[in-house]
Amino acid sequence: MKPGNSLMKHYLQFKDFRAEEYAYLFERARLIKRRFKNYERYQPLADRTLAMIFEKASTRTRVSFEAGMYQMGGSVVHLTTGDSQLGRSEPIEDSARVISRMTDLVMIRTFEHTKIEAFAAHSRVPVINGLTNEFHPCQIMADLFTYLEHRAPVGANGYDLGCLKGKVVAWVGDGNNMANTWLQAAEILGFTVHVSTPSGYEVNPQVAGIRSSDCYKVFADPHEACRDADLVTTDVWTSMGFEAENEARRAAFADWCVDAEMMAVAKPDALFMHCLPAHRGEEVTAEVIDGPQSVVWDEAENRMHVQKALMEYLLLGRIG
Amino acid sequence: MKPGNSLMKHYLQFKDFRAEEYAYLFERARLIKRRFKNYERYQPLADRTLAMIFEKASTRTRVSFEAGMYQMGGSVVHLTTGDSQLGRSEPIEDSARVISRMTDLVMIRTFEHTKIEAFAAHSRVPVINGLTNEFHPCQIMADLFTYLEHRAPVGANGYDLGCLKGKVVAWVGDGNNMANTWLQAAEILGFTVHVSTPSGYEVNPQVAGIRSSDCYKVFADPHEACRDADLVTTDVWTSMGFEAENEARRAAFADWCVDAEMMAVAKPDALFMHCLPAHRGEEVTAEVIDGPQSVVWDEAENRMHVQKALMEYLLLGRIG
Amino acid sequence: MKPGNSLMKHYLQFKDFRAEEYAYLFERARLIKRRFKNYERYQPLADRTLAMIFEKASTRTRVSFEAGMYQMGGSVVHLTTGDSQLGRSEPIEDSARVISRMTDLVMIRTFEHTKIEAFAAHSRVPVINGLTNEFHPCQIMADLFTYLEHRAPVGANGYDLGCLKGKVVAWVGDGNNMANTWLQAAEILGFTVHVSTPSGYEVNPQVAGIRSSDCYKVFADPHEACRDADLVTTDVWTSMGFEAENEARRAAFADWCVDAEMMAVAKPDALFMHCLPAHRGEEVTAEVIDGPQSVVWDEAENRMHVQKALMEYLLLGRIG
Repeated sequence: MKPGNSLMKHYLQFKDFRAEEYAYLFERARLIKRRFKNYERYQPLADRTLAMIFEKASTRTRVSFEAGMYQMGGSVVHLTTGDSQLGRSEPIEDSARVISRMTDLVMIRTFEHTKIEAFAAHSRVPVINGLTNEFHPCQIMADLFTYLEHRAPVGANGYDLGCLKGKVVAWVGDGNNMANTWLQAAEILGFTVHVSTPSGYEVNPQVAGIRSSDCYKVFADPHEACRDADLVTTDVWTSMGFEAENEARRAAFADWCVDAEMMAVAKPDALFMHCLPAHRGEEVTAEVIDGPQSVVWDEAENRMHVQKALMEYLLLGRIG
Repeated sequence: MKPGNSLMKHYLQFKDFRAEEYAYLFERARLIKRRFKNYERYQPLADRTLAMIFEKASTRTRVSFEAGMYQMGGSVVHLTTGDSQLGRSEPIEDSARVISRMTDLVMIRTFEHTKIEAFAAHSRVPVINGLTNEFHPCQIMADLFTYLEHRAPVGANGYDLGCLKGKVVAWVGDGNNMANTWLQAAEILGFTVHVSTPSGYEVNPQVAGIRSSDCYKVFADPHEACRDADLVTTDVWTSMGFEAENEARRAAFADWCVDAEMMAVAKPDALFMHCLPAHRGEEVTAEVIDGPQSVVWDEAENRMHVQKALMEYLLLGRIG
Repeated sequence: MKPGNSLMKHYLQFKDFRAEEYAYLFERARLIKRRFKNYERYQPLADRTLAMIFEKASTRTRVSFEAGMYQMGGSVVHLTTGDSQLGRSEPIEDSARVISRMTDLVMIRTFEHTKIEAFAAHSRVPVINGLTNEFHPCQIMADLFTYLEHRAPVGANGYDLGCLKGKVVAWVGDGNNMANTWLQAAEILGFTVHVSTPSGYEVNPQVAGIRSSDCYKVFADPHEACRDADLVTTDVWTSMGFEAENEARRAAFADWCVDAEMMAVAKPDALFMHCLPAHRGEEVTAEVIDGPQSVVWDEAENRMHVQKALMEYLLLGRIG
């Protein structure tokens, strides 16, 4: 049994960590990113191996986790459905037992959240959610870090998370895994999500897994959701796994395109984010995503840095 | 030409090594595993690269070799049939010449054993059999190491291989590559294999490549094969590449399910092993594989440790 | 922004570098290869990550770049079309922005050369052409290095590139990306290419991107092209992406098989090269490719060494 196992943490949902843990992670991410920018070698995971299991294709999650692990000195085993399909040739529980005997950390991108929970329950090593149908916690961690980087003062302990209190994040579009995760983040960190989705694509607070509905407000009109927002964010109309609904979604989402008009009703210094890939002219106009309020490239790069902090924390972290 | 090439060894069949070499390998595996458990870094292969060529999919072989190589400080190039198909776009001999110019060690999982032999004959670097239709020597090495770990005393030179003499291994099920390899191991290390297969799935001593038939006994009844066995082991009814026979095999193998009854006639301290993935209710009951005599998770992990010892031996070993 | 970015170089065509840069690269390749042969560790890229994007399958390019990067101490993220398809799920420009935020160097093997140009235009890090429909500069660099290794004296600054002046390279076969790149190399380094292709498969100087036609001569008869050549070289009749033309090409290319007769009219010490995979009996006879004038295995290995020099140059080089 690996040492410290009784205290072992997984990161399957945003709410798996407390606000204090996020404060620690964002400060570690800030320091780790600075080292990267300064070409200072920092390889605390030099004898550790990350197993990445992808049941959905990915560029950003793949490159950010893999390059991040390499920058920390570690190694990566990249498993796709061609190599192994969770629950197909053997029960997920057996795969978890075997893979976690040979590696130090596991990242899984899959469909049903129950699959990653089954894996984690039988794993000897920490498991990270790299996206499920229900949640995408690493992306929201990157988004919050990017917001702090652009808007928060740096104090003795790093970014002051207090500055998030009372802020408004406008979520425009699909009530999907990103929306669910934003709700969890709002409840933990004290901000509010203004959600506007087409009818039939509402966020489901049961699935989102929040304790109360105080952390979000629903708006029929996306412009109203954006009013006075500190951050406007959206996602593709058709996430992976829902391609069959593509036509119906195009029709339903037509009014949920983030454009200059929506940004104009948000706060003057509001940021725009998108977890990418983006379809200009669908969920966002080129004017907005390529405009001065957009921080999407920083956001993409920050996936890597917050995930480095996360991996360091799960394997070596001093708080917990 | 790489130094020491005239003495270069491949590991294509279990019988490629002598008993003394296995004694050395098991002791190296024991020490290497201990370092791993103690988080002691040991990276003797820090500038070496392993090429892994997979013509059949794999989780265990993939993760155990790849993570093992990383733990030894080395690197891995993972080639699948999508990247290159042995003998398709160019003769195997040419692939061997090219790949062995660029890497230090090659592991191949393929169908016909003749393919790996052709590759090895033209390789400048050692070649390891990661499973062929005929043999699976790395798995049997792991199984023997697991047996020793659980049952052998540790002396000044490590596990005493003498303790294997006269022991009985019951092989229940398909007369496949695992069975063939068990026969070779028995001949070299002095134990006996009790083989019980359905009619039509017998082990073929010609294919198994043994010198005499002293090392094994055939039993029509699997219960008889298990009587007084020190180790009971089996495999899936339908190995990769034989999926078309699935229906016929299910019928033929119905009585070759390792259950509590079979374990009851074995020695009281008999171990149960399975190279995985396992299909509970087919070749083994849940009661047995998840029971106290089963060491399947240790067995899976030990793939990695014996293979680390093997790679170290082929590249740096002091015996030969 | 990474330091030195304003001076950042890409390597998309052979003519992206000047003769002095090739002199530097060949000397670095010679020293780097010597270290490799002497088992001297040299890991200047220990905290750098190479992203490899393959839209066409590959063995040689894959293994040579990946093993080469490992030997230099670096890491590799290997992306195939299964992971990400350039220009499909998102504009190439966006992929370039994201991937170049997370990695230090990008190698791309794709179809249209315009794709790699679009990527490079939006990349923050150097981009290397690992083969496009139009060019294959890394292969020609390896071929020239192999020629120098076998035929050039070594002076205080390494191989004397002056020895290439006036030499004749016979290109027999398809007027493809290899032929185009040979023309660029001839123009920069002062040798002449004798090109003989079947009718309909001529080299196109516009596509080849040369300034004048002084660097090559066209011959209807491949034997005439080989007369007094210092190097005879060819390629498969049907390159990747042209499989549909296979039948037509077999007929058209029947007389463009490099055989002993062609080698006999070349200079007595002429070398034979082929970028592989080779189809013996089609574009070259076994007698030639497996004969004493053939240096195809050195050529294949040298891909790795010149690419190590190239990666070192793009990331750390002292000339520019």
